[in-house]
Amino acid sequence: MTDTIGGIRIEMTDAPDQPAPSEDLLALYRGFERELLVPLWAEIGELMPTTPTSRALPHRWEWSALHQLAEQAGDLVPVGRGGERRAIALANPGLGGRPFATPTLWAAIQYLGAGEEAPEHRHTQNAFRFVVEGQGVWTVVGDDPVAMRRGDFLPQAGWNFHAHFNPGDAPMAWIDGLDIPYAHFVESTFFEFGRDRVEDRSTPERSKSERLWAHPGLAPVAAADSPGTTPLLAYRWEHTDAALAAQLELEAQGEAHTVEPGHAAVRYLHPQTGGDVLPTIRAEMHRVRRGGETAPRRETGSSVWQVFDGSGRVRVGDHEWSVNRGDLFVVPSWQPVSIVSEASADDSDSGALDLFRFSDAPIHLAMHQFRSETEDDKR
Amino acid sequence: MTDTIGGIRIEMTDAPDQPAPSEDLLALYRGFERELLVPLWAEIGELMPTTPTSRALPHRWEWSALHQLAEQAGDLVPVGRGGERRAIALANPGLGGRPFATPTLWAAIQYLGAGEEAPEHRHTQNAFRFVVEGQGVWTVVGDDPVAMRRGDFLPQAGWNFHAHFNPGDAPMAWIDGLDIPYAHFVESTFFEFGRDRVEDRSTPERSKSERLWAHPGLAPVAAADSPGTTPLLAYRWEHTDAALAAQLELEAQGEAHTVEPGHAAVRYLHPQTGGDVLPTIRAEMHRVRRGGETAPRRETGSSVWQVFDGSGRVRVGDHEWSVNRGDLFVVPSWQPVSIVSEASADDSDSGALDLFRFSDAPIHLAMHQFRSETEDDKR
Amino acid sequence: MTDTIGGIRIEMTDAPDQPAPSEDLLALYRGFERELLVPLWAEIGELMPTTPTSRALPHRWEWSALHQLAEQAGDLVPVGRGGERRAIALANPGLGGRPFATPTLWAAIQYLGAGEEAPEHRHTQNAFRFVVEGQGVWTVVGDDPVAMRRGDFLPQAGWNFHAHFNPGDAPMAWIDGLDIPYAHFVESTFFEFGRDRVEDRSTPERSKSERLWAHPGLAPVAAADSPGTTPLLAYRWEHTDAALAAQLELEAQGEAHTVEPGHAAVRYLHPQTGGDVLPTIRAEMHRVRRGGETAPRRETGSSVWQVFDGSGRVRVGDHEWSVNRGDLFVVPSWQPVSIVSEASADDSDSGALDLFRFSDAPIHLAMHQFRSETEDDKR
Amino acid sequence: MTDTIGGIRIEMTDAPDQPAPSEDLLALYRGFERELLVPLWAEIGELMPTTPTSRALPHRWEWSALHQLAEQAGDLVPVGRGGERRAIALANPGLGGRPFATPTLWAAIQYLGAGEEAPEHRHTQNAFRFVVEGQGVWTVVGDDPVAMRRGDFLPQAGWNFHAHFNPGDAPMAWIDGLDIPYAHFVESTFFEFGRDRVEDRSTPERSKSERLWAHPGLAPVAAADSPGTTPLLAYRWEHTDAALAAQLELEAQGEAHTVEPGHAAVRYLHPQTGGDVLPTIRAEMHRVRRGGETAPRRETGSSVWQVFDGSGRVRVGDHEWSVNRGDLFVVPSWQPVSIVSEASADDSDSGALDLFRFSDAPIHLAMHQFRSETEDDKR
Repeated sequence: MTDTIGGIRIEMTDAPDQPAPSEDLLALYRGFERELLVPLWAEIGELMPTTPTSRALPHRWEWSALHQLAEQAGDLVPVGRGGERRAIALANPGLGGRPFATPTLWAAIQYLGAGEEAPEHRHTQNAFRFVVEGQGVWTVVGDDPVAMRRGDFLPQAGWNFHAHFNPGDAPMAWIDGLDIPYAHFVESTFFEFGRDRVEDRSTPERSKSERLWAHPGLAPVAAADSPGTTPLLAYRWEHTDAALAAQLELEAQGEAHTVEPGHAAVRYLHPQTGGDVLPTIRAEMHRVRRGGETAPRRETGSSVWQVFDGSGRVRVGDHEWSVNRGDLFVVPSWQPVSIVSEASADDSDSGALDLFRFSDAPIHLAMHQFRSETEDDKR
Repeated sequence: MTDTIGGIRIEMTDAPDQPAPSEDLLALYRGFERELLVPLWAEIGELMPTTPTSRALPHRWEWSALHQLAEQAGDLVPVGRGGERRAIALANPGLGGRPFATPTLWAAIQYLGAGEEAPEHRHTQNAFRFVVEGQGVWTVVGDDPVAMRRGDFLPQAGWNFHAHFNPGDAPMAWIDGLDIPYAHFVESTFFEFGRDRVEDRSTPERSKSERLWAHPGLAPVAAADSPGTTPLLAYRWEHTDAALAAQLELEAQGEAHTVEPGHAAVRYLHPQTGGDVLPTIRAEMHRVRRGGETAPRRETGSSVWQVFDGSGRVRVGDHEWSVNRGDLFVVPSWQPVSIVSEASADDSDSGALDLFRFSDAPIHLAMHQFRSETEDDKR
Repeated sequence: MTDTIGGIRIEMTDAPDQPAPSEDLLALYRGFERELLVPLWAEIGELMPTTPTSRALPHRWEWSALHQLAEQAGDLVPVGRGGERRAIALANPGLGGRPFATPTLWAAIQYLGAGEEAPEHRHTQNAFRFVVEGQGVWTVVGDDPVAMRRGDFLPQAGWNFHAHFNPGDAPMAWIDGLDIPYAHFVESTFFEFGRDRVEDRSTPERSKSERLWAHPGLAPVAAADSPGTTPLLAYRWEHTDAALAAQLELEAQGEAHTVEPGHAAVRYLHPQTGGDVLPTIRAEMHRVRRGGETAPRRETGSSVWQVFDGSGRVRVGDHEWSVNRGDLFVVPSWQPVSIVSEASADDSDSGALDLFRFSDAPIHLAMHQFRSETEDDKR
Repeated sequence: MTDTIGGIRIEMTDAPDQPAPSEDLLALYRGFERELLVPLWAEIGELMPTTPTSRALPHRWEWSALHQLAEQAGDLVPVGRGGERRAIALANPGLGGRPFATPTLWAAIQYLGAGEEAPEHRHTQNAFRFVVEGQGVWTVVGDDPVAMRRGDFLPQAGWNFHAHFNPGDAPMAWIDGLDIPYAHFVESTFFEFGRDRVEDRSTPERSKSERLWAHPGLAPVAAADSPGTTPLLAYRWEHTDAALAAQLELEAQGEAHTVEPGHAAVRYLHPQTGGDVLPTIRAEMHRVRRGGETAPRRETGSSVWQVFDGSGRVRVGDHEWSVNRGDLFVVPSWQPVSIVSEASADDSDSGALDLFRFSDAPIHLAMHQFRSETEDDKR
């Protein structure tokens, strides 16, 4: 017998771990309802599973479909104060239609047409932009215009003002990643409007932040420490590409610095802490050489991946998909993920499979709750 | 015009920050629905408010009602493997009937009758017990039986085995605090059964953990560092009481070491880090001298308070209640709380108002998201 | 051939690792002398030994002799501004007659006669006082008079004003420990005079610092973090004694929380960091039960020990001494120390051997240079 | 009256802060001598000065003289096991002829002739190499050959094996910086011989460490954390130069990211901690534009500077020198240093004055003892 008493969900079963149904028990449960109480024994199975059991489902979104809808939105939906951004978020099928890629992470395609601007604001949510294709938009953080180009990772730590503008004659789309669901859940979020218009529309190739900070292992002596806010606002593809290539070259020379054979990966760092680039978000780029296959790996917390280049097949828990450039997929907590790099029908590229990945690992690490494991038995 | 397309909630309004309704827009939204997407502009008001806006509501639970229901549960609901604990949780009226006192915190009354046992298990959730009245139960952490008595705070860091037993002839009730909602949300939770029966039913006055660690400023040289797990398993009332009394005595001598005049407070520490006693939970005891009133204060994140002694009035946001011994109330994120210490009708005690409090501050501090402020204008 | 050219010591040998003597080499060495240069090859053996080779020697000072000289100094040497303290420091026989117990640590007996005062000052050197016998002096830190009694450990972090006064009718002597040699060497030392006279000559049993901080695991909520300065100014013997006794009791019950069988030890902690009580100094109390013997142990850095109670024999490197109450001995870097607890001729006490110890371990730990090892082969 | 009793230096004066001379005092002092004791009052002036008073003296070494002597040593002194390195160290005139540039820092010119090798060893001392001119030597750290070229900074954290070899046909000289005096003083030093010959004499343009780590803001995911050992073994001049140039360019555009107007500076970071590159050593490169002058600045601890390019005048305390490429000078603790960038007679270069600097700041910071200040009054 299963029942619901009032707004409080109560399971009245004769399962061995539940009390036997009776009139008295029903009265007790009505008492709980009246006093806004819920017994542990009715909920423990869901609240305290033996391993993390995600409400989120593994899912893949195809870039072509996303991009087409974003283009249509570009025609129909203006960008401006109030709506703030023409961003369209992944809504995990297990999370009740909310714009949450995973329980903690937001991932959206953002689209800015030729000549358009997105107005300045700031929020305590941590954010980044990642560019899978195109270029031509500058994001202005404070007074620093930062060019966005294919392969670039652009972190945006919380509570910094930022706006975007597209001075060119072609639209551009990219991926926004944020901790919106996490911040929404823990209720830590502040938001403030900034200037309505971008005043300085200069379009430098390199931002001030890069001129100050994109020198390997070097920091301005005059810089103040800021553990919450990374000072480097653009991680350029040329560096990421070179770092991945070097790992595979060293592997070919017999030096093991890859995650596993054929699988190179780099993590984006906060240069002043040497830790994850954002307080709540870990971001990485992975490269699996053509023909390579990664061992199933699972970890506490959830991830969103986007194919940056190449094609292949991905398995997450019981789901399996073919993936191509731009496709996104989510890996719920403790679900094993494995990746095969192989040519697809419409992929004439002979290169490796490159994947961008971001996760909520920092929140689990900070709480001493992070676990990860690799399954030895490859399927 | 407001509408819902499929499982995805979509607001189609002619508000200035929303696109104008049209057939094309409807088609676009149906596309979003089909592809599991949700636009930011339809959600931003809720997801990115200017200050934290809690789904939780301020609420007070009266101890007398709680305790009466717990007693009835003692008659009707057995304690054993599966249900694990006879714990009855506060279900915040704003959180949809789930057993969540706040979005991140669990608070429950647990009841163990004469001669009963609660079986051993462990979980990654961090926990503590706080005793507002009574004594006679021992919680066994690993192989260390820890007596529970009025005023004691007993932390239980994640992934340590623990059981309870009541060797006496009277039932006992206390408060459990955990990060169950937080762990449930971020999906980091592991659980494991231990022994079904308590093997060592010895009932020492002081636990081994106290014999090793309850010496002010002293650590065993042989102890290994364990930043996630506090080694001290009982913080006894005699120490807490003495520490609060000393702050008020020093204040009376002109030394300002209280939070504000007439308001003493101590925080429970992890002795090996000097920081909060549990990775996700801050715990404190407050004392407001008779006649005192605290200035409204609000902070990022939520708290649960329990009156330990005395009586008074509490205001949280728009809510105000009289409170007496054992009563619990919740303070949602960014809601101001203020407390008046005064005699109630059924409070012949002339003493101060003592309140136990726990909050989720550590998760906000670790993510560089913690803010607090005191309103200068007392009402 | 060994020679010295000018002020620069140069060894001209035909050892295989030194260049062959010649007129040209002599000219080269004179060039070095002229230009203030010294070649590595002439110094490497001393500067880069295979293991730490201390200039300090193991040495023991007998308390009776120290105390007698301190008493004489009490008659002859006034205490006052300029000399500041009637403190008589151990001068390690290997360190050239400087008042350095070890290369980094200062240890002195300080003596204050009935009615005397030592004027207020502050210095960046970290300090502590440890009382092996007697009582009756108050050290005033800021405006907090702290009683000193047998067995108490009283830390005094750098840059806090402090004075001493003896309001009674008996003199008192105790041990001062500081990082004077270290600070002198790294040249970080600042010093400032304070008030010439102790204004508040109150003599409370417990200091304000203890009233605020000597509650196990509890911190005032209103306290500011101060990682450099510990807020607890007295660690009382009753707590230290109880903590040591508990470790041995637990051992007798089959619980291993001692350093090794029969050898209990506690470390003094900074309650706000959970780490060592002072930035440069580790302090501990050890208890070896009657008949016990500790395994030889050596570590990077140096220590000073003082027998607090009981008697025994101590071996440090090649040295061995009998020790009784109050005797001090030093353990140079990487010299093994082992201790035997046994009755001496003039020790009718049947109890254990208690030893206070302080070392410079924190500076080695902070620089990632700390090593320690226990020799398996007991002699 | 000043006297020395035995090996212990004792000042017997009638200064107001010293006891009056007498027969009894003399007997007391002889007692101190006999028992290896020294009174504080005879030493406090030297040991506890009001501000750091360095034994080291400001001094400048001219590169031309150093280099000439190193060349001569190249002819006369072989490199090999035992002597280990043909390194000639600066001996500060205030430090008794020891090879100590400052009390804590070692600075030496090392010279390796065409075809020569320096054998492999490791030591717990932290080290770096800095190249003011020339190229052609590879330092082999573990199995990673690292090319050395003008302007490169090459850190060598403690306890890593390393050797050098010069496969070309020209000799090369560079600067070694180490914490030898500090490690010697605190007696933490371990040393071990490695292979006598360099086995892999490959001469790659870029080391493995750079291929893995010299990508701004990127870390290999597979890398283990190693806070004591920086994984990046070469900081190339092209990056340092670009970083300094960018600061001055930004300054010219009205953005203040320099230390002071006309004075750019970068610090070398440990990429996994974001802190100083070595546990005991801070290293920086400074650029003062032609005509610029830095405000006098002093700080706790000592520094060694080397002119990398350009010319100018330097004032340290009471000393003032002209400096040219390669010249080294030391700044003792708490001595103000100021620098003027100006053309010298033999400097036809129109560029800025570039200076490499290293200091012992990390040891003071870790001990909460670091202070620095700028004098407002420029001379």
